[in-house]
Amino acid sequence: MLATVGVNSAAAATTSDIASIRQRIRTGAFSGHTSGLAPGHVQGNVVILPADLATDFLLFCQRNPKPCPLLAVSERGQHSLPTLGADLDIRTDVPRYCVWNDGAIIDEPRDIRRYWRDDLVTFVIGCSFSFEQALTEGGIPLRHVTLGLNVAMYRTCIATEPAGRFHGPLVVSMRPFTPANAIRAVQITSRFPSVHGAPIHLGKPELIGIDDLARPHYGDALPVAADELPVFWACGVTPQAVVAAARPAFCITHAPGCMLITDRLNHELASF
Amino acid sequence: MLATVGVNSAAAATTSDIASIRQRIRTGAFSGHTSGLAPGHVQGNVVILPADLATDFLLFCQRNPKPCPLLAVSERGQHSLPTLGADLDIRTDVPRYCVWNDGAIIDEPRDIRRYWRDDLVTFVIGCSFSFEQALTEGGIPLRHVTLGLNVAMYRTCIATEPAGRFHGPLVVSMRPFTPANAIRAVQITSRFPSVHGAPIHLGKPELIGIDDLARPHYGDALPVAADELPVFWACGVTPQAVVAAARPAFCITHAPGCMLITDRLNHELASF
Repeated sequence: MLATVGVNSAAAATTSDIASIRQRIRTGAFSGHTSGLAPGHVQGNVVILPADLATDFLLFCQRNPKPCPLLAVSERGQHSLPTLGADLDIRTDVPRYCVWNDGAIIDEPRDIRRYWRDDLVTFVIGCSFSFEQALTEGGIPLRHVTLGLNVAMYRTCIATEPAGRFHGPLVVSMRPFTPANAIRAVQITSRFPSVHGAPIHLGKPELIGIDDLARPHYGDALPVAADELPVFWACGVTPQAVVAAARPAFCITHAPGCMLITDRLNHELASF
Repeated sequence: MLATVGVNSAAAATTSDIASIRQRIRTGAFSGHTSGLAPGHVQGNVVILPADLATDFLLFCQRNPKPCPLLAVSERGQHSLPTLGADLDIRTDVPRYCVWNDGAIIDEPRDIRRYWRDDLVTFVIGCSFSFEQALTEGGIPLRHVTLGLNVAMYRTCIATEPAGRFHGPLVVSMRPFTPANAIRAVQITSRFPSVHGAPIHLGKPELIGIDDLARPHYGDALPVAADELPVFWACGVTPQAVVAAARPAFCITHAPGCMLITDRLNHELASF
């Protein structure tokens, strides 16, 4: 699963900051959560699959763009992602990985050079850190950030559009807002379709199969005040949950909260 | 008060259609409601005030752009509105007017040439007909249109920003939508800041002083289904209610639902 904790609204990290952070990750000196690291820079969820599953997963992402907004797909066997960073190497540049065999995690290494194969395809999927920066810059407080918690996430009764072996329920993240801030949050996040975009639901959690907001399926429960509405976004946990449920013989993902830091700026992603 | 009934999503009226409609209004042959007339064309709320009140009212609109989005303000004493239509004459081109003395309607004529004075200033304020067209074109059904009713409108506990003699509560219109359509409605109406723009509230009517949705202060009650949220927009009734409450010695407005039809297209108003 992905952690979607926190967001840092400080000034954007410089090119040399990014080089320094990447070097620490690459050498294994840093293997922690990336929330708040490299402020202003796009972070991504990572799914690495053998080529025989990659076409189905690509199709799954195409059919489910809200939970699975693709930032980049590598060439088969290539460990570079030139559109996300000139020197990126997906084998070393994620702080911590999960290596999966038949749906079970068998290793959580700091690099995956020893697992690399010539048939692997890397998918990098947008992350809500990007739109959370825009919300924070827009003066909209985020409850989970204020409380130092992870965002609340729920499996819904909304089915994703299946593709080959990949199917399962849409997972959503929830942020409580006053009605006025909920409207503003729709406006702000609509500008960022490549990082989940606008909410998919607000108010009335029971309509999407969430019976108890106090019991999230992932992350932390967040209080929703009497003058607030719960606002729900499609969540990057969805593709990871779908891949885990498909139990591929072999798969690599980032470890929860340990995202790929890219050279791209969140502001670059704004659609208008 | 303004009626904000209906919307016509048919193909836009042509230039000759508009000329024909305007001629019928100008000659007094048509004096009815303009909902559905001149599809695709901007319609406006009209407030005409003596110059000694016009500065305060202009300031009121500037301070309250959500309920009072100004489409045009005439030169003092001029009955033309060239930015809204080359041949427009505000003395004849509204189907029916209300003439007010000290807060009371003293006449509802089809033209106001006999009331015209050299110190009058005309304000034309955007109308929700424009964004309702965009919602309808976006595939979002409008309950009041489906039911052939007027939209529901409520006085809220939100005070407008006063200016001189003008002050009073914000009036809102309410349209019920499913959560997904409510989100889409925020996106669509955000594109139209000059016709009230995004909603100001959704869900939880009690937070803005509306105790009973079934008892609107203007217009018709609309059913809100269990899977819907009430969505509230700042309403063009606000400036008229504010002007009526200020009881100016002399004032002219359009009669409810009998709007000024302009040459401008609703699509021209879209901000992106």
